[in-house]
Amino acid sequence: MLTKQQLFSLMASAMLATAGSSAIASDTVAQKVTVSDWLAQSSASDWRELDSDNTLYMELPTGRVVIELASEFAPKHISNIKALVREGFYQNIPIVRVQDNYVVQWNEPDDATPKALKQAKRSIAAEFSVKLPANFAFTPLADRDGYAPQTGHVNGFAMAMDPGSNSGWLTHCYGAVGIGRDNDADSGSGASMYVVTGHAPRHLDRNITLVGTVRQGMSLLSTLPRGQGDMGFYTSANQYTVIKDISLAADLPPAQRAALQVLRTDTATFKGVVEAQRNRGGDWYQHPAGFIEVCNVRVPVRETPVN
Amino acid sequence: MLTKQQLFSLMASAMLATAGSSAIASDTVAQKVTVSDWLAQSSASDWRELDSDNTLYMELPTGRVVIELASEFAPKHISNIKALVREGFYQNIPIVRVQDNYVVQWNEPDDATPKALKQAKRSIAAEFSVKLPANFAFTPLADRDGYAPQTGHVNGFAMAMDPGSNSGWLTHCYGAVGIGRDNDADSGSGASMYVVTGHAPRHLDRNITLVGTVRQGMSLLSTLPRGQGDMGFYTSANQYTVIKDISLAADLPPAQRAALQVLRTDTATFKGVVEAQRNRGGDWYQHPAGFIEVCNVRVPVRETPVN
Repeated sequence: MLTKQQLFSLMASAMLATAGSSAIASDTVAQKVTVSDWLAQSSASDWRELDSDNTLYMELPTGRVVIELASEFAPKHISNIKALVREGFYQNIPIVRVQDNYVVQWNEPDDATPKALKQAKRSIAAEFSVKLPANFAFTPLADRDGYAPQTGHVNGFAMAMDPGSNSGWLTHCYGAVGIGRDNDADSGSGASMYVVTGHAPRHLDRNITLVGTVRQGMSLLSTLPRGQGDMGFYTSANQYTVIKDISLAADLPPAQRAALQVLRTDTATFKGVVEAQRNRGGDWYQHPAGFIEVCNVRVPVRETPVN
Repeated sequence: MLTKQQLFSLMASAMLATAGSSAIASDTVAQKVTVSDWLAQSSASDWRELDSDNTLYMELPTGRVVIELASEFAPKHISNIKALVREGFYQNIPIVRVQDNYVVQWNEPDDATPKALKQAKRSIAAEFSVKLPANFAFTPLADRDGYAPQTGHVNGFAMAMDPGSNSGWLTHCYGAVGIGRDNDADSGSGASMYVVTGHAPRHLDRNITLVGTVRQGMSLLSTLPRGQGDMGFYTSANQYTVIKDISLAADLPPAQRAALQVLRTDTATFKGVVEAQRNRGGDWYQHPAGFIEVCNVRVPVRETPVN
């Protein structure tokens, strides 16, 4: 196994070689370093626990989907989701739409009597993008993006930004979690939600409010039977998968919470992981890509180590 | 419904507006035209039947997956696949790997006695890219790509090319079909194959031989239970989905063939479809992306109309 110092040295060589014209040198060096190498040498401080105040557990008959919310990108929607959670709104809400290579969506069926709400609202003003604070710190991706002037990561979430307007938004990568809406931009609330289960539909960016990402349990959603109606809607209620409930981690006793950590994206280890994904190491790859787009960066998640 | 002439006029306005600085004009125009508008006005000559000499039917217990092969990109592998088909190699070959957001793969299990082959071979020299003929005609995508100097479509297949070396290759988009291999670049043959079922792993481009794309039946693969072993391999043979057989369309009587057409990608209708996906129309979109990457272009496939 390589030491951290050896890894940094190799990464520096690889980046130099990539920046220069010597593809052969880059190939040779890059083949030595893999994501596993970087994770194997990571330290405890490279990881953080999921934020229990912003982590949802969607309980399906088949198991738990763990969603982490990025509250700085959609504070009003996330506040409303928490209200919906605490009012029990999500109990027995069905998954009504499973469109192949696109999304899974849940909400009250069209023919159901809408549930009565208490504090939660049925519509919230769109949060398609947010103004970033002047000192906003994120980890930019060096690679150019076609859909946005700049992409990168903050706090383990993939994002894009426009330095011109100083606005930022979460990107529609695999596992992104968003708020269903009608044609009216302000018609979403969290009563309808979706998860991206296909190739990143980046054309949805800034057209709909994203609130977070799935940290664990994606395959419980991605394997659901596809709906046969238009846009993947199920054509009969007996095809629904019914959500038992969605709860907030912080509302559960610690023993019932998922013990998961996400790699901090403001660390040197994360930079190494990205470089190892940009130019894949190991014995198999022949042609390092020399490039990575934001939705191909996999942010590592692991079970919290037991001391 | 809009006429073809109205559609072209709208597209021209939208592209002008996009090229200029008037985002508002672009928004206003783009909202009027959708992919459905373009397909509704398409003529019979905009479509072609699948090439029966290069179409495979993978028969699963749940139904048929239709794969079209792009013979100009991997002639040796495709010739070998046809030999494997005709020798009955694929009968009862299991799907051994289903990795979430990545690939489905089938081949003889590691612990099985390899089937005896007649004409077919167990290894073929890599066809990671091909030299393009001087007069190679394809439909370039105007949008820049991070993984390749140029992307576009030929004959309904997504591809990339390097004008400098005049080489071309198929891209790892959702539904792409490729040839499994070991570390040796020349160790593939078609005895192991895979289909991309997740976000486009473009870093595989030029690292492995692609042979075609799935035209119908993706959800039969994308919903398979995920393997729980490393890289999504199943850990027990009783988890396998066993392929009944793979046959070549041309070897079957016409009545047993799938009657499918793909939109010709060298047509004005396809250009319109791409523009409608680049700047989504309809009443829902608020912010046309003004960009599309090659794996977000959906090449339309339809059942052959009955006259």
